[in-house]
Amino acid sequence: MRDVAVIGIGMTKWGELWDKALRDIFVETALLAIDDAGVDHIDSMYVGCMTSALFVGQEHLASQLADYLGMGPIPAARVESACASGGLAVKQGFLEVAAGFSDIVLVSGVEKMTDVGGDQATYALSTAADQEYEGFHGVTFPGLYAMMARAHMHTYGTTREQLAHVAVKNHRHGALNPLAQYPFEVTVEGVLSSVMVADPLRILDCSPITDGAAAVILCPLDMAKTLTDKPVVKITGVGHATDTIALHSRDDVTTLNATAKAGEAAYQMAGKKPEDIDLAEVHDCFTIAEICVIEALGFIEKGKGGTAAESGLTALGGKIPVNASGGLKAKGHPVGATGVAQVVEIVKQLRGEADKRQVEGARVGLTQNMGGSGGSTLVHILEVQ
Amino acid sequence: MRDVAVIGIGMTKWGELWDKALRDIFVETALLAIDDAGVDHIDSMYVGCMTSALFVGQEHLASQLADYLGMGPIPAARVESACASGGLAVKQGFLEVAAGFSDIVLVSGVEKMTDVGGDQATYALSTAADQEYEGFHGVTFPGLYAMMARAHMHTYGTTREQLAHVAVKNHRHGALNPLAQYPFEVTVEGVLSSVMVADPLRILDCSPITDGAAAVILCPLDMAKTLTDKPVVKITGVGHATDTIALHSRDDVTTLNATAKAGEAAYQMAGKKPEDIDLAEVHDCFTIAEICVIEALGFIEKGKGGTAAESGLTALGGKIPVNASGGLKAKGHPVGATGVAQVVEIVKQLRGEADKRQVEGARVGLTQNMGGSGGSTLVHILEVQ
Repeated sequence: MRDVAVIGIGMTKWGELWDKALRDIFVETALLAIDDAGVDHIDSMYVGCMTSALFVGQEHLASQLADYLGMGPIPAARVESACASGGLAVKQGFLEVAAGFSDIVLVSGVEKMTDVGGDQATYALSTAADQEYEGFHGVTFPGLYAMMARAHMHTYGTTREQLAHVAVKNHRHGALNPLAQYPFEVTVEGVLSSVMVADPLRILDCSPITDGAAAVILCPLDMAKTLTDKPVVKITGVGHATDTIALHSRDDVTTLNATAKAGEAAYQMAGKKPEDIDLAEVHDCFTIAEICVIEALGFIEKGKGGTAAESGLTALGGKIPVNASGGLKAKGHPVGATGVAQVVEIVKQLRGEADKRQVEGARVGLTQNMGGSGGSTLVHILEVQ
Repeated sequence: MRDVAVIGIGMTKWGELWDKALRDIFVETALLAIDDAGVDHIDSMYVGCMTSALFVGQEHLASQLADYLGMGPIPAARVESACASGGLAVKQGFLEVAAGFSDIVLVSGVEKMTDVGGDQATYALSTAADQEYEGFHGVTFPGLYAMMARAHMHTYGTTREQLAHVAVKNHRHGALNPLAQYPFEVTVEGVLSSVMVADPLRILDCSPITDGAAAVILCPLDMAKTLTDKPVVKITGVGHATDTIALHSRDDVTTLNATAKAGEAAYQMAGKKPEDIDLAEVHDCFTIAEICVIEALGFIEKGKGGTAAESGLTALGGKIPVNASGGLKAKGHPVGATGVAQVVEIVKQLRGEADKRQVEGARVGLTQNMGGSGGSTLVHILEVQ
């Protein structure tokens, strides 16, 4: 396999982008990434998107977007793994470059979620669960994660306040990110008094519905050094694993097996351990998710995840800053885009371009992007050269 | 890149499979492929599926199917390029093995189309067109291909009867394929008197709505020779290209640019020319499609495609048998499965296992799978070792 580097990143402000079509937000970020990389062409592209079918009535998305980017007839592939679609796109782009099949590959993630009403959005997202055994019986994602939260509180003594601290931390980080959908702080009291969604999860425990895109440019590491004067970031670890997509099929609903397996694979490939990671962007679709994820990745002992945000362990300035970007909670969660945006943030940090939220001296970053209630996970480890 | 071989194939009878769920038809074919390969595990899997979202209300399909196959927590990825999703899955599986990232990879395609009504199926399929500029204005795929047919007839003198000969040939082949949805012959008169769908295309010019799946097992060529006693088939050419997904954006609606580009790339990689190909499985979603495809692939001069089926050039026993399986027309067209089933047929032929439809002495086969009205195309060249 050839070594693979990230040489360009692009992202625009996320939010309710009613004046832009899906193709517009994709093209904006793709052009930013191409410009950042300083390349004049791309050889191939990947698009991570969960369900443009249900949000905007469009499949065959990659061909459409290659055309609108003015890059046809290049190969263009859309990949999907629910909310891990962006992370999957990064893996597939990595493989295409690693195999030597293409040199300069655009990897993007995009989702346009606010063109439909709330009921339709909830239905669209529910297709990431097992529809025949979960969705058609009325369970939606806040309900599934609420069950995980209740089980974690029951088994490990995690408190309602500790869940709130995850949201408070990520909004504190997000307030430093001008591209975040909700760049403002919230308080523990604010979270605890926000409207109930699925007991114990309140609205400020939940990531929002977002329109957004993100893009990165990959190329062989050797070539990267000739193309850009910016610090080159190498993808040193790629982990991908699955779990049952139905929550009830698991031995323990507080353990994210796919994240643990994908993390192990990425650590092994990169020759790293959890303690070697300087910062991480993880999939905090709900506050409880971040708690379970940092346990599965080995950043904290199983059952102790609830203490991490409260103690400052995972805050900017802490031992392992998690979601310096604001995470899904404050930055927003355009589902197919999230996994790519995580890589954008890590590259910014490793290049020292993260401004007020910069993690000083960051050399090794990790992204963790998962689908559904953890039925699929992609983990990437990135290192500045 | 490592050389990649196909060591297992699996397919069941296609049709209106109302007694089976999507996950059932996937598992049946995947187990057949695993059994045929003689392997006891797989390292990773790809699923090509166009729109399980709109046909069965399910995204996150690859994780679900890995679980139902009993193969979790292996990596599992769903890829989509409309009706070329199966071909795209083959490419992505190829890249994963070629890169050295995984050894034994299951590549499957699946679509369950008959659980919805005709209007819903037509809408689901229309998402492969440009929804904002085509679909939402009422154009559906029979209409788009009808315009291509009218243009071909006008420009090149292709006749209504020549279109019919494509259906007659493919049904004659399909009658020899026990897994085909419609394994019976039709006549030119029968096609010409069948119900009109979109002038000049009649119902017997159109591929059907089908439930079905297909699967293949890929591995490194070196390993193939140690795993199986069957003839080993190597993937020697992989071509992938895109075109506008909106028909009106093209210079010439009778020319399939993505197919031409993907064909060129595959020929170059394999070191082959059109005249080196012993047989081909191509994307005859409508009779006019096969005519345009064989021109784009260089099997016949531009504008002469209409004569091929009538003259016997593309029939079993002809110079370049096309769609010996019956093609999409007679075998059926479960959209995401088609590209994988094409590879299944070519491997059967190259192994000499195609029974009454065997192309004698076949050594080199080609598959061509396209999305929408030609907005994406995957071409693979396979050779028996």
